[in-house]
Amino acid sequence: MKKNLFIIGLGLIGGSLGLALRESPLVNKIFGFDIDIKTVETALQIGVIDEFKSIDEGGKNADVIFLCTPISFFPLIINELRNVVRQGTIITDVGSTKEEVMQFFSNLPQGVWAIGGHPMAGSEIKGINGIDRYLFENAVYVLTPAPDVPEEQVNLLGELLSFTGAKIKTMPASLHDELVATISHVPHLAAAALVNLTEGRDDNLMMAAGGFRDTTRIASSSPELWQDILFSNRKYVGQKLDKLIKFLFKIKKALEEDDSETVYTELCRAKEIRDQIPHKRKGLLPEFSELVCIVPDKPGIIGKIGEILGKENINIVDIEILRVREGDGGSIRIGVRNREEAERAVSILQSCNIKSWVR
Amino acid sequence: MKKNLFIIGLGLIGGSLGLALRESPLVNKIFGFDIDIKTVETALQIGVIDEFKSIDEGGKNADVIFLCTPISFFPLIINELRNVVRQGTIITDVGSTKEEVMQFFSNLPQGVWAIGGHPMAGSEIKGINGIDRYLFENAVYVLTPAPDVPEEQVNLLGELLSFTGAKIKTMPASLHDELVATISHVPHLAAAALVNLTEGRDDNLMMAAGGFRDTTRIASSSPELWQDILFSNRKYVGQKLDKLIKFLFKIKKALEEDDSETVYTELCRAKEIRDQIPHKRKGLLPEFSELVCIVPDKPGIIGKIGEILGKENINIVDIEILRVREGDGGSIRIGVRNREEAERAVSILQSCNIKSWVR
Repeated sequence: MKKNLFIIGLGLIGGSLGLALRESPLVNKIFGFDIDIKTVETALQIGVIDEFKSIDEGGKNADVIFLCTPISFFPLIINELRNVVRQGTIITDVGSTKEEVMQFFSNLPQGVWAIGGHPMAGSEIKGINGIDRYLFENAVYVLTPAPDVPEEQVNLLGELLSFTGAKIKTMPASLHDELVATISHVPHLAAAALVNLTEGRDDNLMMAAGGFRDTTRIASSSPELWQDILFSNRKYVGQKLDKLIKFLFKIKKALEEDDSETVYTELCRAKEIRDQIPHKRKGLLPEFSELVCIVPDKPGIIGKIGEILGKENINIVDIEILRVREGDGGSIRIGVRNREEAERAVSILQSCNIKSWVR
Repeated sequence: MKKNLFIIGLGLIGGSLGLALRESPLVNKIFGFDIDIKTVETALQIGVIDEFKSIDEGGKNADVIFLCTPISFFPLIINELRNVVRQGTIITDVGSTKEEVMQFFSNLPQGVWAIGGHPMAGSEIKGINGIDRYLFENAVYVLTPAPDVPEEQVNLLGELLSFTGAKIKTMPASLHDELVATISHVPHLAAAALVNLTEGRDDNLMMAAGGFRDTTRIASSSPELWQDILFSNRKYVGQKLDKLIKFLFKIKKALEEDDSETVYTELCRAKEIRDQIPHKRKGLLPEFSELVCIVPDKPGIIGKIGEILGKENINIVDIEILRVREGDGGSIRIGVRNREEAERAVSILQSCNIKSWVR
């Protein structure tokens, strides 16, 4: 039987869930709630939800409820929901830590199925304008069911969420919190620390190139949000932070003692592990080969390149503007199906006086 | 008078310098050398250099010599050059540390002008295939002249390099090395440390989302190269690493002692400083507004969108494929000139049954 969903909080995650799940054959209607009325209007307009409902109304009529607000709102919302939810309703969330959330969920009536959730996906554009139907594609989506939840209910939620393209992993809330301490929370603190190491000095900041930008990007996130996350997970964050400090101290000692072996070994280990993390493939269709071209800064140039290559039956599967000089030109990376097409594209573009080469 | 340049080492940096400087009105010919014959062939073909020359020949006939090999080759190359360079020749390099390089340069004959150089730009694609005419656009390019170099020689090199789009900053080699310890070398070690904190465990790595990927990207660089850089700058790296450790320890203590004030203050400080680093603007023409659209995974779709919008006189100034599901579809971010065009683009695309919204 098709399910009615109720999404509370229509920001980046809640909105993207709605956008993706509305096309699922398992879904009947999606109800939505947000305290911001403009967000609700946008959600209805884009087609993220079918109907606006108050928390009471939505909670009463939903088969699955998604809490997609900041975690600090959960106690209030759960307090309102506990009086209206039907037996057999699934309640889940998308918060960044899970032990604390499962604690909140324990205030729900018996026979309501609490399954914590955390999709490992995001975007720097917060709110409904950042939504993306494919936000969860290939992302891990962790579920942490309460001990009393029947397996078929966990499977049902997992099946529903699979439609977003996410890979569902079920685990205990405590393991989740330990893993995110290592992979998200401590890296966040390290990024903040690296930024603060510059002391905001102009001469330091002016030197910041792509590497520093990437490494510290997450330090621009909301301090309020992150303070909450870090304290809500402070046991594991403290443990992993301690390990990080010990590791850095070991390297410092190795540098002082001219112990290049240790430094080299650790750098190699890091490279070996890091190279295992799969690249994010972004192109349409599997991507095989790339070329770079240098184009003038002229209106319509991107459309024109698409047209030139399309005419010769070369399909652009990925495209990225690398760098630009205003009023002069820029470099564009183009992904095509294979090496042969890349070479053909290069010679076609060259014949149009566009400097290009296979990358 | 136009200058002859000699670029030794035609990798990412040397190749990009050649590509950019060949069109400068201040340049006569660019000679090039690389130990890899295929690299030389590619360089000639793309138009990075005018002529291949041996180190002797090039050194004899150049007005400005660029060392663009790994630093470990510098002593050998300088030893060969010292017997052939003419008085008044400028020798510069693109190495990552400067005190050690200036030491090597001190072996050159008097009257040869040694000016250390370091462009703060790079790419994950190494070698000549990663080159980009605009690689240095808006990047800081540090020059560290030896004490005996006349100011007009420094200005001459600066003027020459300005043509790449780089912003030239002259400073003592020691200050450069201190700054890069903070902005590049310690961040590199931190990225390696964060990766090693995962211990390569599958459950940790599977959770890695965009944030971890970005923060640790540089940990995939060459361990050989980085071991050299770190030891060549170990005095400053040690100092800054010590500060980083102290900072992380302070946060750990604050977490333990429930001192949320300290954590919050440091997160705010990091955000404030990080937000000062200007975004990399990548679109052609100044970019004002963005839309997102959801498209089917069909050959030629990018060209088609360019065509649809072009027909209505809407100019794509930036484009990025956000995410993709193979055989299904993907989301594309499109930058246009202004809000009005973004709204117009959305309604045009919607009328073609392409779901889209202003971001």
